[in-house]
Amino acid sequence: MTALLGIDYGGTHTKLLLAGADGDPAATRRRTVPSASAAGLDGLAREVEAFLGGSSVAAFGVTVPGTLDVESGVVGHSANLPWLDGLAPATLLGERIGAPGVAVQDGVAAAIAEARSGAGRGHDDIFVVALGTGIAGAHVVRGEVRRGAHGGAGEVGHTDVGGDLPCSCGQRGCLETLIGGAQLGRRWRERLGSEGGDAASAVDVVRAARGGDAAAIAVLDDATSALARALLTISALIDPALFVIGGGLARSPEWTVDPAVAKARSGATFHRLPDVVPAGLGVWAGAQGAALSAADLVLTG
Amino acid sequence: MTALLGIDYGGTHTKLLLAGADGDPAATRRRTVPSASAAGLDGLAREVEAFLGGSSVAAFGVTVPGTLDVESGVVGHSANLPWLDGLAPATLLGERIGAPGVAVQDGVAAAIAEARSGAGRGHDDIFVVALGTGIAGAHVVRGEVRRGAHGGAGEVGHTDVGGDLPCSCGQRGCLETLIGGAQLGRRWRERLGSEGGDAASAVDVVRAARGGDAAAIAVLDDATSALARALLTISALIDPALFVIGGGLARSPEWTVDPAVAKARSGATFHRLPDVVPAGLGVWAGAQGAALSAADLVLTG
Repeated sequence: MTALLGIDYGGTHTKLLLAGADGDPAATRRRTVPSASAAGLDGLAREVEAFLGGSSVAAFGVTVPGTLDVESGVVGHSANLPWLDGLAPATLLGERIGAPGVAVQDGVAAAIAEARSGAGRGHDDIFVVALGTGIAGAHVVRGEVRRGAHGGAGEVGHTDVGGDLPCSCGQRGCLETLIGGAQLGRRWRERLGSEGGDAASAVDVVRAARGGDAAAIAVLDDATSALARALLTISALIDPALFVIGGGLARSPEWTVDPAVAKARSGATFHRLPDVVPAGLGVWAGAQGAALSAADLVLTG
Repeated sequence: MTALLGIDYGGTHTKLLLAGADGDPAATRRRTVPSASAAGLDGLAREVEAFLGGSSVAAFGVTVPGTLDVESGVVGHSANLPWLDGLAPATLLGERIGAPGVAVQDGVAAAIAEARSGAGRGHDDIFVVALGTGIAGAHVVRGEVRRGAHGGAGEVGHTDVGGDLPCSCGQRGCLETLIGGAQLGRRWRERLGSEGGDAASAVDVVRAARGGDAAAIAVLDDATSALARALLTISALIDPALFVIGGGLARSPEWTVDPAVAKARSGATFHRLPDVVPAGLGVWAGAQGAALSAADLVLTG
């Protein structure tokens, strides 16, 4: 029995994926459950047991939406699944599943999957950017994420792009203050002069821009200029061979990724700005990356 | 005969160094010659032959102050030694010296030496910053420089630090516009309102700051704030285990490196800002790195 289990443990939905020994996404079985029914590791274990229906797996990977100590597998802080704080989910789940497991940060898992099975397939040196509520990144070389000396590398959302807006991380001027989904809606409402009232989402901003709303267009223009500066900084410091850009905002590329790439190309001087391609795996990237991490666990013992 | 030759081919002086088989700087023989007498590769070859005095070497490394195609060893552009443009100096010198050779960018050579034999010795994951006329950088992992997909990585001088000043590279807001030695003097004179007249050097600015000159102190304050932002961006994207900072400006650390590091520490939020140590090898780092690159050439065939 060499099946591998990938668990993408998210804030609203949890995705379960059963794959072949090499983590190949073809011929996999998949299930999405509301995270409410997988609340707490006990709830998650019950959902996994129901999904597996008594069959065994060689190993599993589980994503964590938060900070993680890579050596110990202990979660530092998860804003969306706060009951994980201080726990080692792979160890605890492993006792229930009866197989070895590994915990992986959600962005890292998605980047591994995009690099090995998605848009980066066939390329050795890829920088993956996920434009979501926050902005995540990962440099993947020959299928392995470069995590840095303390597991903190790839935080493209907190590179300096020259603004003065306060970021949730405590700094000012981070990329995330201008293009993070959480901030786009806020910037738009501020421009409209309506600071109170309902929060606007990034989807609302893009829809308004499509309708010709000048404030939305201006906010997105600032956002894509900031992303362009971040892509140039990554090229200058890391010089990857390919950018893969995904996440919710990348689904409207004509308002987000395309203008950012055009601005980066026109702003490049000495840089070797590489090709930029859209992510290919969509919402299952995290679960596939978890299954691929399980495959690594089996291979490395 | 296993001696290794390191040649640091600079704009004003050229340094020659003969080292043992492992590139160990101990028990080496050294000579500095004015680059005027080593002008052209023929002039350099004559100086090398005089230095060697008939003894042979197993291999040599030669630094290039400019851009270099790593695969072919051909110089793209060298502002300081323009006769190198389009030539492969290691190939041409090798015919005269009678040994295999390798060309290395000067900043890369110095970083290799600092990482393996200098301040980074004993550390696996180091980011080296050289604060000179320009600002160079290199990420060195287990003694190897991460050059990036197109040999362009490590260009910390051209990361965005949020200003709007024009950089020699064509961008605006690069780190080099605020702390590069060439720019510091210009910024100081602009603040003093004397845009014409003699150019001021970084040394002049530091001397004036020591004497209490408010304009010089303000220019250096901007410079160290910019360096702090760049150190935080490197930590966010690459997360090295150690920073090694050298170059001419680092020789007055109380006005340059020390305040920058203090600002970076107080500005750090999620970052794991590592220790910062001064470079240890001084002006011979480039020649030592060239000799170490020659050792690599022998080892890898």
